[in-house]
Amino acid sequence: MKPGDPAFTALRNTYRSGLLDDVIPFWLRHGLDRECGGLLTGLAEDGKVVDTDKAIWLQGRATWTFATLYRSVERRPEWLEASRHCMDFVNRHGRGPEGKLYFSVTREGRPLRMRRYVFSESFAAIGCAAYAAAAGNDRAAEEAVKYFETYLHHSFTEGVMPAKVDPVVRPSKGLAARMIGIATAQEIRANLGDVHARGASCTTWIDRCIDEIENDFYKPDLGALLEVVDPQGGVIDHFDGRMLNPGHAIECAWFILREAKERGGDRRLLTLGLGILDAMWARGWDAEFGGLFYFTDLRGLPVQEYSAEMKFWWPHNEAIIATLLAWSLTKDPKYLDWHGQVHAWAHRVFADPVHGEWFGYAQRDGRISTRLKGGLWKGPFHVPRMQWYCGRILDEMAAG
Amino acid sequence: MKPGDPAFTALRNTYRSGLLDDVIPFWLRHGLDRECGGLLTGLAEDGKVVDTDKAIWLQGRATWTFATLYRSVERRPEWLEASRHCMDFVNRHGRGPEGKLYFSVTREGRPLRMRRYVFSESFAAIGCAAYAAAAGNDRAAEEAVKYFETYLHHSFTEGVMPAKVDPVVRPSKGLAARMIGIATAQEIRANLGDVHARGASCTTWIDRCIDEIENDFYKPDLGALLEVVDPQGGVIDHFDGRMLNPGHAIECAWFILREAKERGGDRRLLTLGLGILDAMWARGWDAEFGGLFYFTDLRGLPVQEYSAEMKFWWPHNEAIIATLLAWSLTKDPKYLDWHGQVHAWAHRVFADPVHGEWFGYAQRDGRISTRLKGGLWKGPFHVPRMQWYCGRILDEMAAG
Repeated sequence: MKPGDPAFTALRNTYRSGLLDDVIPFWLRHGLDRECGGLLTGLAEDGKVVDTDKAIWLQGRATWTFATLYRSVERRPEWLEASRHCMDFVNRHGRGPEGKLYFSVTREGRPLRMRRYVFSESFAAIGCAAYAAAAGNDRAAEEAVKYFETYLHHSFTEGVMPAKVDPVVRPSKGLAARMIGIATAQEIRANLGDVHARGASCTTWIDRCIDEIENDFYKPDLGALLEVVDPQGGVIDHFDGRMLNPGHAIECAWFILREAKERGGDRRLLTLGLGILDAMWARGWDAEFGGLFYFTDLRGLPVQEYSAEMKFWWPHNEAIIATLLAWSLTKDPKYLDWHGQVHAWAHRVFADPVHGEWFGYAQRDGRISTRLKGGLWKGPFHVPRMQWYCGRILDEMAAG
Repeated sequence: MKPGDPAFTALRNTYRSGLLDDVIPFWLRHGLDRECGGLLTGLAEDGKVVDTDKAIWLQGRATWTFATLYRSVERRPEWLEASRHCMDFVNRHGRGPEGKLYFSVTREGRPLRMRRYVFSESFAAIGCAAYAAAAGNDRAAEEAVKYFETYLHHSFTEGVMPAKVDPVVRPSKGLAARMIGIATAQEIRANLGDVHARGASCTTWIDRCIDEIENDFYKPDLGALLEVVDPQGGVIDHFDGRMLNPGHAIECAWFILREAKERGGDRRLLTLGLGILDAMWARGWDAEFGGLFYFTDLRGLPVQEYSAEMKFWWPHNEAIIATLLAWSLTKDPKYLDWHGQVHAWAHRVFADPVHGEWFGYAQRDGRISTRLKGGLWKGPFHVPRMQWYCGRILDEMAAG
């Protein structure tokens, strides 16, 4: 397949049309809360609101999605306005008494849950950064850096975030904080330039996170990217330490491949990203029913999480991006083949041709098990980011 | 079906043989940790240990199971010893610095996780009470009451247990604390007599919990027992407030039916218990694939929890007890019919004729999705309690 081929054009149209004619209109029509601000994400399959609580994660992510489309696809005022609408809600209602963002609030913005971790902050940071660039708004740029600094402080300063498991008896560190560190810094840099946060540039933070992932979390000899390791990168041989999340790891792979690409094809990063993708595709792809398992075990033992066999929408979004990006960077037909497999499986299983958008959760064989379009963990982010980013990859290939 | 019928005898034998020839030997053979004390529950399908971390919940529950068998089935020294083995582990290694029990510890008993709630305490209380009665041990009897007092203090004294959701913005209370209050007080009373804890007898605590369930959680007009309500018993019309857990509610029903029985057929309690069972069977039974859904929604809307459609082993254990107990108390053939359905489905899907014991988790159609026999939430409790209690019901019927 190459630019100009009917298959190439059809693929490009699938992503563009899915984004502009289906997913984005679904959220603008059903989700925007013109009465109380922000975005409602607790939506039934037909878009009807079934819960009005608002996840701060998703307000920040929606801010990013709408601003990114405005900046890089088309200057539609309704997108910029939707982005501002979500950003304002976070800035007005998201902050707890000590400045840390809540996890969820009521429709009106009253606090419901504060959690230990700081992903509300990372998503608010990319949202504000994208809005700042889209609208030329300096205040949003400053907010973006402040949110990122809070994220970095809580994620990487020892003792700031309370540990879930006793840190003396079983010290550990997680992949998530590092990979979201990469993605957040990449988005801030793309929108605001290589600004500094907590004394280091975005590129320096990306380097630090990638180094730690390469040295401590990635085990080429075991063929796995681990989710949790001990502070020196050792395997914690218990349920949680052995638990692999192939979709999450593949998402990490494409963040690294994106960095390789943005550094003009950096060989070390390319090798690392492709190595992780290869290992975790082998770990995660379900040869019997298709799709990616949610969790697998490093040693092939049974996983304690009962959702292990289920198929979630977002790992498939990540794998669609990772395989297309890997193919565009290497032209290795293996990646185009994988891309075709995961693209077809995910669109067949999760996409809803009746009401639009995607379902989120299926049992192993692809039968949809929850008929929601959104909730506290699903909103206008993984699906449209995939459609947008895959569209860009194909556009760049077409442009040579 | 009546005592003396071959079907009655066969059913009795299924429970007895399942308990004595299958489930209990499985745990004694594979679980007892003779090196470090307590019980290992992270077991693969063949009993192989795949994780050595120990859940304090399950140490207390195992203490109860082994002591109860010793006291009420047969005086086998190995059962009493196993009970003491698990109890000692909790007493030696379970307590945090402020006296509250951990949720999980390492194999050696070093702390891993402390959680907000106090179910470790309720299960330690029933374990110590059963051991005290089995061994005639006064110190264990005192421990049982102390654990129960900690449970009551944290569960029912406002402000002691930190709230997960802001208690000013969305005040709420949960069914679990009340129903486990009933079961804990019942077991302490059965083993130690109607002793007092925090100024009230076990029977008084049972009355308080049942009253609150009847007045605030049970909605006969809506045909549902709610899991979470506002402090006045109002419906919280959000995902969490609408979420029903049919197996959990049916477990509550049989605790109430047991109380009705122990009070010589108390009409009010019988009506309440049967009402909850009827309502929640109608809510939970999957007419298409059989088995009980894990979660459903009060208004028939989609549930946010992605495990909603899955089938877990323990709700089936509870429904097997509840339907048999309801039949034994009413002789209504409807309950025998339901009992037959859930007994057959659960034994076909979860019981493992190859290595013994039951699997814990299946997808909607009954396909096993996790091939563990135990972990932090599954050990020698729900399955053997069902086999033991159903055996007792049938024995009592046979004895007239």
